[in-house]
Amino acid sequence: LIHQFLNANQVILASGSPRRKELLEMANIEFKVIKPGIDEAHPENVKTKDVPEFLANKKCLKLQLKYKEACIIAADTLVLSEGRILEKPEAAWQAKEMLNSLSTKTHEVITGVAFYLKGQVYSFSESTQVSFGKLTTNEITYYIQKYKPFDKAGSYGIQEWIGLVGIEKINGCYYNVMGLPIHRLFKELNKHA
Amino acid sequence: LIHQFLNANQVILASGSPRRKELLEMANIEFKVIKPGIDEAHPENVKTKDVPEFLANKKCLKLQLKYKEACIIAADTLVLSEGRILEKPEAAWQAKEMLNSLSTKTHEVITGVAFYLKGQVYSFSESTQVSFGKLTTNEITYYIQKYKPFDKAGSYGIQEWIGLVGIEKINGCYYNVMGLPIHRLFKELNKHA
Repeated sequence: LIHQFLNANQVILASGSPRRKELLEMANIEFKVIKPGIDEAHPENVKTKDVPEFLANKKCLKLQLKYKEACIIAADTLVLSEGRILEKPEAAWQAKEMLNSLSTKTHEVITGVAFYLKGQVYSFSESTQVSFGKLTTNEITYYIQKYKPFDKAGSYGIQEWIGLVGIEKINGCYYNVMGLPIHRLFKELNKHA
Repeated sequence: LIHQFLNANQVILASGSPRRKELLEMANIEFKVIKPGIDEAHPENVKTKDVPEFLANKKCLKLQLKYKEACIIAADTLVLSEGRILEKPEAAWQAKEMLNSLSTKTHEVITGVAFYLKGQVYSFSESTQVSFGKLTTNEITYYIQKYKPFDKAGSYGIQEWIGLVGIEKINGCYYNVMGLPIHRLFKELNKHA
């Protein structure tokens, strides 16, 4: 079992996201969180869909210099809707505008993951299609006021009220939308363990 | 907002499932749980895919006789794999056999929902495709010993360790696999509120 293998080493989650922490815990991995604190800029020639994997690599490489003996897991998540990147909203009006733009549409959530294991860095991207039904202005206003999704790319958490009420269906990995595709991560870790 | 409308009435969840209870709570509905205690038999002429909706109606109708003023929500979930119904396992060997049969395959989870509102009963079915990756014997044994999935049709909980580690992707509503498709339920309630 991969988590038993990992638990024999020091595991570092290179991310401050409480959702990623929760998912790794549910996967029964023992780890500590160290925020890598990178500059999230990327060269212009990196395609939009490859940005999360690029940034995950950057996070992983930064910690790897300091924790050479550890297993490091880094991730970055991007919400892409009709060619537009939806970042974390800075104010309620931005969150409102984003949720309005997601209503009745299908968008894409891409998580890039990089991990450092036995002296090497590996990485991959996983994509999930998410389809919202109709979101009313009342629902959007209620959600933003009560849940304050300002730490979430795209202004929503799939595991929160609006995810239950507003999302019609997904196609792909659910946990990828939460920020870490555990199934794929374990599969890739297994290849190199 | 539908939950504000519902919270003005007495809401009854006609199900003993802790997952359904959790989902209705996450949807911000105030309710109490009353187990309907029905005989889960169904006439032979009901098609397999229609059985959950049939049983949900049966549960709803039973409580409706006693709680005429309430809003009653009932549900029943079926796991269907290659034409075979996977029930709750009665022993570890059955759970093992079921999980083995789900490995590397796509199966269907159908939840039938019936609700009683303003003197009438309405019902619908929702289906989600769930695709497992390869489950090893070690993973299956570990999961059954640690999580004891004997109260779960198909021997797994999508929100548990094996769901994170073993499920490659789903197509449809995630919460439907947990036992209650909240998005669809709210949509149908809204039509009749």
